[in-house]
Amino acid sequence: METQTTMARQPEHAASTDAIRVAVSTVIFSLQRRSGRERPTVVIPLVRRTRDPHDSRWALPGGWLGTEENLEVAASRTLGETTGLAPSFLEQLYAFGAVDRSPSRVVSIVYWALVREDVSAQPAPQNVAWFDATALPQLAFDHNQIVDYALWRLRNKVGYSRIAHGLLPELFTLAELREVYEAILSKRLDPANFRRQVDSSDTLIPTDDFRTGSHRPARLYRYNHDVELAERGPLPQ
Amino acid sequence: METQTTMARQPEHAASTDAIRVAVSTVIFSLQRRSGRERPTVVIPLVRRTRDPHDSRWALPGGWLGTEENLEVAASRTLGETTGLAPSFLEQLYAFGAVDRSPSRVVSIVYWALVREDVSAQPAPQNVAWFDATALPQLAFDHNQIVDYALWRLRNKVGYSRIAHGLLPELFTLAELREVYEAILSKRLDPANFRRQVDSSDTLIPTDDFRTGSHRPARLYRYNHDVELAERGPLPQ
Repeated sequence: METQTTMARQPEHAASTDAIRVAVSTVIFSLQRRSGRERPTVVIPLVRRTRDPHDSRWALPGGWLGTEENLEVAASRTLGETTGLAPSFLEQLYAFGAVDRSPSRVVSIVYWALVREDVSAQPAPQNVAWFDATALPQLAFDHNQIVDYALWRLRNKVGYSRIAHGLLPELFTLAELREVYEAILSKRLDPANFRRQVDSSDTLIPTDDFRTGSHRPARLYRYNHDVELAERGPLPQ
Repeated sequence: METQTTMARQPEHAASTDAIRVAVSTVIFSLQRRSGRERPTVVIPLVRRTRDPHDSRWALPGGWLGTEENLEVAASRTLGETTGLAPSFLEQLYAFGAVDRSPSRVVSIVYWALVREDVSAQPAPQNVAWFDATALPQLAFDHNQIVDYALWRLRNKVGYSRIAHGLLPELFTLAELREVYEAILSKRLDPANFRRQVDSSDTLIPTDDFRTGSHRPARLYRYNHDVELAERGPLPQ
């Protein structure tokens, strides 16, 4: 109980909270190149449930919050168990607590994370599969709604932050960076305009390395690590 | 339990969550004109605790989440109990759940709200007082950190959203709007530049009414209600 007034006015709440449980789930975005797609696909890993409620439905990776476990630690643990890797970006998304979202009362603190493209190509643990985030089946609980909100946050954030970095390897070409934006925004971007915007944004550092292959050599860039990937403000790091 | 894999791997969590309780707290911003201040002060109401932990410390208004109560409803209830009014703006801020933030394990879902200037001038309920949000005493729990984060969110949001609307009456002059920005950003803004920015932003609708008084008559404006006060994306309204 954090304040005296409410305890005085809502005594039943102090007793009733035992019935509320706290879960932590994570929306984990990555990119996959799928044959027949002109641009990479934004994918998320889902876990198939093997018990009720929502037996055999797919659900976001997650679990109960441990009594001695901080929220972000729980989210990272979930992510490690699902993808086997550490995220390049992890941020709290929202707390979902609608009374009717689960048969029992569960407040889910949802995080969203980015893992680099190659990750989702690794073999996934049993019961885990990667899905196109924009074409999901009916998921368990309110998880479709949660993914939609996470996608909305991702699309907003890619505009004003360096979030794309979290989906790219250390070194990348401007074409590869543009592909990440195109995948997230689900639209083609003009290469020349994109290059101008990136050059003016001043967040990329050109290297002396080039990617060679079927096309003409393309210069490799890296992000300026002096700038944080995401602005957390005064939140504890 | 929302996924099968984690249930399988973290069985102890399912049993241990009974020890975790969920509280909802709200950072309620308003403006007060204080003598000797050149601009309005951003103020928040705090509740004095009358029991341990942190007996006699000031704390954010809040309370335990009711088993049958949605998160936003709990935040609105808290706000009504503290200010006696409905907020002009209410949004989830963040879930604070550090293991050591309270003697017992408490996850606080924190909301932030705006109430119009005149509200904080009303007599407050017993145990409630309004404080300058930028000059707080040592609060209970991690509430100083929570207020700092809410202030950071408010300052960011005033830049790209119409959040100032939530602190203004239905009709206001450009000078009054500028004062809200100056109060939130803690700096003086050039009136001419401010007017140019507002005119180009296209979110204000000039009325045929004028405010008269000691100065020359100033035109009254209102916000364009066709635009939402805050962008919630696909979150349920």
